[in-house]
Amino acid sequence: MSTDLARFSINQMTVRQLSMPELVDACTGLGIGNVGLWREPVEAYGLEATAKLVRDAGLTVTTLCRGGFLTATDPADRAAALADNRAAVDEATALGTDTLVLVSGGLPAGSRDLRGARERIADALAVLAPYAAERGVRLAIEPLHPMYAADRCVVSTLAQALDLAERFPAHQVGVTVDTYHVWWDDQAPAQIARAGAAGRIHSFQLADWTTPLPEGVLNGRGQIGDGSIDMREWKGYVEAAGYTGPIEVELFNEGLWAQDGREVLARTAERFVEHVIR
Amino acid sequence: MSTDLARFSINQMTVRQLSMPELVDACTGLGIGNVGLWREPVEAYGLEATAKLVRDAGLTVTTLCRGGFLTATDPADRAAALADNRAAVDEATALGTDTLVLVSGGLPAGSRDLRGARERIADALAVLAPYAAERGVRLAIEPLHPMYAADRCVVSTLAQALDLAERFPAHQVGVTVDTYHVWWDDQAPAQIARAGAAGRIHSFQLADWTTPLPEGVLNGRGQIGDGSIDMREWKGYVEAAGYTGPIEVELFNEGLWAQDGREVLARTAERFVEHVIR
Repeated sequence: MSTDLARFSINQMTVRQLSMPELVDACTGLGIGNVGLWREPVEAYGLEATAKLVRDAGLTVTTLCRGGFLTATDPADRAAALADNRAAVDEATALGTDTLVLVSGGLPAGSRDLRGARERIADALAVLAPYAAERGVRLAIEPLHPMYAADRCVVSTLAQALDLAERFPAHQVGVTVDTYHVWWDDQAPAQIARAGAAGRIHSFQLADWTTPLPEGVLNGRGQIGDGSIDMREWKGYVEAAGYTGPIEVELFNEGLWAQDGREVLARTAERFVEHVIR
Repeated sequence: MSTDLARFSINQMTVRQLSMPELVDACTGLGIGNVGLWREPVEAYGLEATAKLVRDAGLTVTTLCRGGFLTATDPADRAAALADNRAAVDEATALGTDTLVLVSGGLPAGSRDLRGARERIADALAVLAPYAAERGVRLAIEPLHPMYAADRCVVSTLAQALDLAERFPAHQVGVTVDTYHVWWDDQAPAQIARAGAAGRIHSFQLADWTTPLPEGVLNGRGQIGDGSIDMREWKGYVEAAGYTGPIEVELFNEGLWAQDGREVLARTAERFVEHVIR
């Protein structure tokens, strides 16, 4: 593996057009040693088969995406969410990763109560965090951009994520810092310092901000270097906070998904070196 | 005018399908005594003609939208922006409103420097604020939702807007609180209190948050009551902070624009009474 790519991790969603064996083969060919996996493709290929595939290739699984969606009020829905998150922890263990990324969930249908939804996340973490810790898995709360507050994630800032995480030991619950979600926030650098001082930066992800945003605003994350975010600046913040772990590139982008996956992977690695490392 | 509508102001953009005379006539017919105007339709109808029309109808112009776009680096562009904002102040004076809403502007093309852009806004305010104050006009910095940070407004939170405003006297520079832009922000209630204590809430606007967001995310603002925002809660925050002024409903919504403007206006007034007043 080249030194430039030592910390690079490719999140599987960036090249979701690649099958699991194609992804692993492409990583091996390009000297990429780290991958972030998603539950759905892992399930499709098979949990044990995926674990064996990445282990045999010598790949490190930096994160499993994702657990969460913990804001339901209905008791049956809440029980189902907890069961699903326990399963996600078990899958993380089987894949040999120590980090499960959590997307907290939006407002229940008809609700306008952000505060209540955030509090229900804390309630769920009280159940899930010890379960995960017993299995060697850390939960990494990912604040999502405020444009997702209603329908996807009521945790919109690193400050909110840390307010939740700090109710638990750092080895149980920390945060995911994703440039796409926090780049606009002038408080984020101080919150990264807060997170780093407590050992709570459990994942660091990159995507660039490009406009115009597509309908639904889900799949418009820009390739590294194409947008408004100074990637070196954010790498500097997490490093100043003591973070030396993998740097995962996670792009949801219809345009990239329509291209050859191996070429997208190669170009993403090049962009990482150009805009983050050198 | 009914007591329920005493504080209601219809922002012209909500019913942009109405001509200026149609808007004024519809307001008179519905017992609506306040309007927020936009520069482009005012210019189209004529500044003096608009001023006479609203004056003769007994309408109060609560705000003029909008000045701003103060983030350019190029000297010629900066000079043009200042000249345009002085013209906006003059138009506000002619229309008899004391409040000019400012949308600060996004990143210049190719720039990734949010901090620098925010500082250039302060530089421009140092020129514009005294000019406006001499003419009886207050500038109201409007933080826009963080999804506009790159291409429209680098001021994303009330805290950032107040950090800028507080460099100037309160009668010169304050803020616009718009529920659409700040509803996700758990720091906003405290910042509203900060703004109110200093007499810096110069405008209070409402729009609801509905999903999915449309492409470009500009024209998907929800009718009051259709979305995720508890309007009474936010009215409570500004009132607890001492604000007793007009409450302007400003919806950018392709769906509403495709309907009969008078019906939209009547329904918006009904929704205001239902979700904000009663």
